[in-house]
Amino acid sequence: MKTIAEYRADLESAVKELSWPEGMLDSLYQPVAYALSAGGKRIRPVLTMMAADAFGGAAGKAVRPALGIETFHNFTLLHDDVMDNSDMRRGRPTVHRKYGSNAAILSGDTMLTLATQWVCEVEPDRLRSVLDAFNDMAIKIYEGQALDMAFETAETVSLADYLEMISCKTGALLGAAATIGAIIGGASAEDAARLYDYGMAVGLAFQIQDDWLDTFGDSATFGKPIGGDINNSKKTYLYLHALESSPAMEEALRAAMAMAPGESKVKTVTRLYEKLGVKEGCSKAVAHYSSQAMAAVKATSLSDEAKDAFRHLAEKLVGRKK
Amino acid sequence: MKTIAEYRADLESAVKELSWPEGMLDSLYQPVAYALSAGGKRIRPVLTMMAADAFGGAAGKAVRPALGIETFHNFTLLHDDVMDNSDMRRGRPTVHRKYGSNAAILSGDTMLTLATQWVCEVEPDRLRSVLDAFNDMAIKIYEGQALDMAFETAETVSLADYLEMISCKTGALLGAAATIGAIIGGASAEDAARLYDYGMAVGLAFQIQDDWLDTFGDSATFGKPIGGDINNSKKTYLYLHALESSPAMEEALRAAMAMAPGESKVKTVTRLYEKLGVKEGCSKAVAHYSSQAMAAVKATSLSDEAKDAFRHLAEKLVGRKK
Repeated sequence: MKTIAEYRADLESAVKELSWPEGMLDSLYQPVAYALSAGGKRIRPVLTMMAADAFGGAAGKAVRPALGIETFHNFTLLHDDVMDNSDMRRGRPTVHRKYGSNAAILSGDTMLTLATQWVCEVEPDRLRSVLDAFNDMAIKIYEGQALDMAFETAETVSLADYLEMISCKTGALLGAAATIGAIIGGASAEDAARLYDYGMAVGLAFQIQDDWLDTFGDSATFGKPIGGDINNSKKTYLYLHALESSPAMEEALRAAMAMAPGESKVKTVTRLYEKLGVKEGCSKAVAHYSSQAMAAVKATSLSDEAKDAFRHLAEKLVGRKK
Repeated sequence: MKTIAEYRADLESAVKELSWPEGMLDSLYQPVAYALSAGGKRIRPVLTMMAADAFGGAAGKAVRPALGIETFHNFTLLHDDVMDNSDMRRGRPTVHRKYGSNAAILSGDTMLTLATQWVCEVEPDRLRSVLDAFNDMAIKIYEGQALDMAFETAETVSLADYLEMISCKTGALLGAAATIGAIIGGASAEDAARLYDYGMAVGLAFQIQDDWLDTFGDSATFGKPIGGDINNSKKTYLYLHALESSPAMEEALRAAMAMAPGESKVKTVTRLYEKLGVKEGCSKAVAHYSSQAMAAVKATSLSDEAKDAFRHLAEKLVGRKK
């Protein structure tokens, strides 16, 4: 098996090999090329190639499907940025800021179809399961985004609602990336399902860790200012965990969250979180899903070397400081 | 074979049988249900069912794929309406007017994936060709929409550019609807390709006829005010045909198109069109593509009864007054 950096390099090569129609179609394809060239960790396609490699030494066969997975991911970011009216993404203007929201909508649609085409560049006997895994995941992603938007105005959101939302919005894509790689590599249906569970659990651990870092991380290594979620009154794992663990403190928490954005709000809410043991509760949840991920991999028929590679990827992703 | 009305009724039943997740996901699925319930002629799914029936007596097997085709069509209308900021569609508020543009974007994305899922409810040995036909068509649709938007600001657009645009924006979907039905019905690759050509040619005839009706039609039967394209200075088949057929009149035409919208502009441009033989040129083009469509069907191995059914559909569609 290759290193994570090598799989990532394979993906970057596949992106560079793409060529686009020119002339009047520039308006359609330039935003696509721009979105795909943004870089990022490329974790999802790495996972697809790793899984294909681990089960069948088939990383090469998985490059284009992995590119499809990454293109799908970038399509969701592109449309999310339109919906959230975000200005910046990975240190550059978002697609709709640079090209306008009509181009962002239409180029996003194009990316979804390109993603489907590329993910489906698989052998005939694997097409049905790959396509189904991909489409089922896509539906979950939209549902996750819909829930995320609904949470903004919902009076009450439970921790269970939140876990459902992130399992759709973050877990499903990592799960699908892993299971599609496994299918391409020729894994049994059971092993492919375990790889899905691995990706899903890694996704949950990753997202909860992300919420944690937004409040308790170090801004220098996290890459964005600490306290953004608190200032935006986001219903994160931390906030919902605090609410559910201490009903007596609900009023104090809601009052703190209702404060005007600023340092004082961040400090007040963070202190309440610390008092309520949210820091530890959150770490415990991350550890729980991380070990769930490893249990799923352990149950597969993979070699110890391959299992180690998946453990390493999970640690790199979840143990990250940024 | 059934009548067009019967195929349409089968499609309406399939729409009515759909059920949607409720609760917080209402925000995602209500716009989808709203868009699909808008009715309309359902020509594309009728074509899919007709083709499946004609080649293999397989109209039943084609109902869900036909629903996928119609869902795809409605997805494109939904996102187009956001991009064009249209208020009304089929006599009702557009999805983004009723539910907001974020819901319209996300529910549109959902419809594209649902469409892919439903179109692909086919037998294993037909999955690859159906999926490829569907995805290739989708890319053409986006390219057609991109060209249509680029034309608005382009200095010069040729009649060939325009035909390329409508072959993408209108022809490709009718072509794919027909060829996917043929594949489901077990048509040979040649016959499936001929059905694509039929749908494509019908689409071109239909679109040119639509441009014609917008200027020369009868507002009572056309369903919208006559002269809308002229008032919007749209680069229609009529306008581009006039420009190309009489370079000497270019200045006069451009001046007329630069007039302020209103009855006087519509009258002036229409008179110029009549003087330049646009009315006849346009009818000739419609007849040309209509006979191309019939030649494609004639070349298939279909029974005379089936060929007649396709002729009837084309006449109904292209010979329409609205």
